[in-house]
Amino acid sequence: MNENNIILPEPTLRRLPWYLAYLEILKGKNVENVSSTQISRALSVDASQIAKDLSFLNIKGKTRIGYEVKALIEALSDFLGFTRTHKAYVIGAGSLGKALIRDSGLSNYGLEIVAGFDVNENVISRTDLGVPLYHIDHIYDVMEENPASIAILTVPAESAQESADIAIGAGIRAIWNFTPYRVKVAEGVVMANTSIYAHLALIFNRLEALKG
Amino acid sequence: MNENNIILPEPTLRRLPWYLAYLEILKGKNVENVSSTQISRALSVDASQIAKDLSFLNIKGKTRIGYEVKALIEALSDFLGFTRTHKAYVIGAGSLGKALIRDSGLSNYGLEIVAGFDVNENVISRTDLGVPLYHIDHIYDVMEENPASIAILTVPAESAQESADIAIGAGIRAIWNFTPYRVKVAEGVVMANTSIYAHLALIFNRLEALKG
Repeated sequence: MNENNIILPEPTLRRLPWYLAYLEILKGKNVENVSSTQISRALSVDASQIAKDLSFLNIKGKTRIGYEVKALIEALSDFLGFTRTHKAYVIGAGSLGKALIRDSGLSNYGLEIVAGFDVNENVISRTDLGVPLYHIDHIYDVMEENPASIAILTVPAESAQESADIAIGAGIRAIWNFTPYRVKVAEGVVMANTSIYAHLALIFNRLEALKG
Repeated sequence: MNENNIILPEPTLRRLPWYLAYLEILKGKNVENVSSTQISRALSVDASQIAKDLSFLNIKGKTRIGYEVKALIEALSDFLGFTRTHKAYVIGAGSLGKALIRDSGLSNYGLEIVAGFDVNENVISRTDLGVPLYHIDHIYDVMEENPASIAILTVPAESAQESADIAIGAGIRAIWNFTPYRVKVAEGVVMANTSIYAHLALIFNRLEALKG
């Protein structure tokens, strides 16, 4: 897995899952080989860009034949880390937090949610989520028993920074921020923002503009 | 609401919800006024950028005092469309689709999920989600009874394009794509991608690189 130690550009990391999704579709249709030109037409990404993105992987396409679909799927899944298990905590078991805990689909991509944390005793006492819930005060103990490297942040915006700080203090190395608050982390801590409210704002604005 | 008919730049639409989240925190602390310099320090966004972003709104800050927190929250929520109801369908009631249907938090931001669609009869017969589920073949009928403008796409990647085409054919004006497939839509249809798999790939890659 050492080839993974290189820091890939964000746009490449955005496109590689597109290629993977398209390749899975081809595999479902029993297609054996694919050229970057074909991928290019299907996804409206420049063919030279695709060749460049795929050059990060230890896999080469063959002239006239292209890439072997199955081999490229394996190489991509592995390269993207989807075949290895990464343990995560959900911090904030409100409606979105509970929804993500229940979304078993994430485990197909290498994310295993092993615990949830909250401050509300009524929430913590729930046992129907398939994952144990704890008070955030117990994160140090849980980290010893069942360590995780990723914290999925689904707390209210006003608790986002404090919750991130606590999680990082307990040993978390990456924050996946679903709150609309712009959490700050020290260098060396991984930060990814999934800005669903920004995407909602984008959709609403563009819909209004269409009404023009 | 006519000021909303202008197409805002995407970076502005990404930042405005940050400001809103921060202002809500200030409101919770009974802070009455805030300057763009203050927002700038809290969120690490250039103060002149903030003033520029907020200039899209019909609200002016006062010299030395800044913006009135409550008034700015109202103006921002309204401007972003979070105070109006936008009806949506979830297409694909798998684990993520069900999770989004259950995430009542989205309704606080103006998104009302009024129906879910799937092709699996076992899924469709579920009645515990609080929202009716239908076979995708019935989308035209549902559109007549309870129309929606937004389709939240949570189908498997191989069905993403077809599902989007069906939804658009039935009258949907905006696709919120949660699949890793790069769906294509005609001009005039709004498209927003929430690339959770790309964000996972980013987190995994950066974590590996840290181990370096």
